[in-house]
Amino acid sequence: MKILLIGATGTIGKAIATELKDHDVLAVGNSSGDYQVDLNDNVSIEALFDKTGKVDAVISTAGSIVFAPVKDLTEAQYNEAVAGKLTNHLNLFRIAQNYITEGGSFTLTSGDLAQNPMPGGAAVSMVNGALDSFAKAAALETGKALRVNTVSPHFVKETMEMMGMDSTSGISAADTAKAYRHAVESTESGQIFDVPNYV
Amino acid sequence: MKILLIGATGTIGKAIATELKDHDVLAVGNSSGDYQVDLNDNVSIEALFDKTGKVDAVISTAGSIVFAPVKDLTEAQYNEAVAGKLTNHLNLFRIAQNYITEGGSFTLTSGDLAQNPMPGGAAVSMVNGALDSFAKAAALETGKALRVNTVSPHFVKETMEMMGMDSTSGISAADTAKAYRHAVESTESGQIFDVPNYV
Repeated sequence: MKILLIGATGTIGKAIATELKDHDVLAVGNSSGDYQVDLNDNVSIEALFDKTGKVDAVISTAGSIVFAPVKDLTEAQYNEAVAGKLTNHLNLFRIAQNYITEGGSFTLTSGDLAQNPMPGGAAVSMVNGALDSFAKAAALETGKALRVNTVSPHFVKETMEMMGMDSTSGISAADTAKAYRHAVESTESGQIFDVPNYV
Repeated sequence: MKILLIGATGTIGKAIATELKDHDVLAVGNSSGDYQVDLNDNVSIEALFDKTGKVDAVISTAGSIVFAPVKDLTEAQYNEAVAGKLTNHLNLFRIAQNYITEGGSFTLTSGDLAQNPMPGGAAVSMVNGALDSFAKAAALETGKALRVNTVSPHFVKETMEMMGMDSTSGISAADTAKAYRHAVESTESGQIFDVPNYV
């Protein structure tokens, strides 16, 4: 399968590239990888698909999130959260749906905070919840022609270590990547694939 | 209780004003009502609370939604959906939290499409899902000082009739309003109040 992996240079992205190495993975980053894209720029997204041509699957683990106490979140931070993970992926879906082969799949990354919040994560919960509901709704319309799902990671062990947190409860990036294999290879659509179920 | 009701002139808003007539309801509209506000304009929101002073509860049923097949949704329509129901309510929350009395409540309106989508409703599902997850996350931080919830209406009978739809499965605006009474008078927080449970 020809799989376009956006966010390929991130912690989860690298693990997905390794997990799916039996497929033809096109690694896309902001500034590195086989291809580059800026998801907030439609011209950039169109240019990416002009280069790759049709693909069988699109996965995105890209985007940025904003952590701050809800009493302190500013308008700029809310807008940053929306642009960093929500509207950029709506852009991606809008364009990508024309470049995925019949029966292919489109997989976004939401996150457990959509359902199970933590202090400081209100803006993250908000964008994750938006992506989960969007994918489910989009899938209803695209039917068998295009499967649309989210993978919902929990805290990733490597990320927790990088942030100096106790990583005991974390799930490794390699284990997290297994949910993306399921998203690409299963026949399910309109689902939130909760990472612990695929480890 | 002094309740600020934003969207008071809409179908659900009018029914809430009637339902809660044993309280002191301040009716806020875009251009009519006791007060006016533009939720996309922070200055306008601040000016509203300058006029009303502290309130015990804020309810919003305001906002606009975008229905279109997911394959046709344009970037402009996605942005309209986000500005029409999501970022305007993040603005409202950000400012309102400073004007609600200790132990008061903040109630947004999401909608059943967040969990149970319908064709043409992907942009609606997206914003509703965002509000449900945001309210749950915000509530975790505001604790007993401020209850934060969403009411999730199903199709409203009067709206369906107005749109020429078969309204048999609809729930009247008066019945829908009962869930808002629960949101204001209960002690629950971080909940999605699914309207059929309160009819």
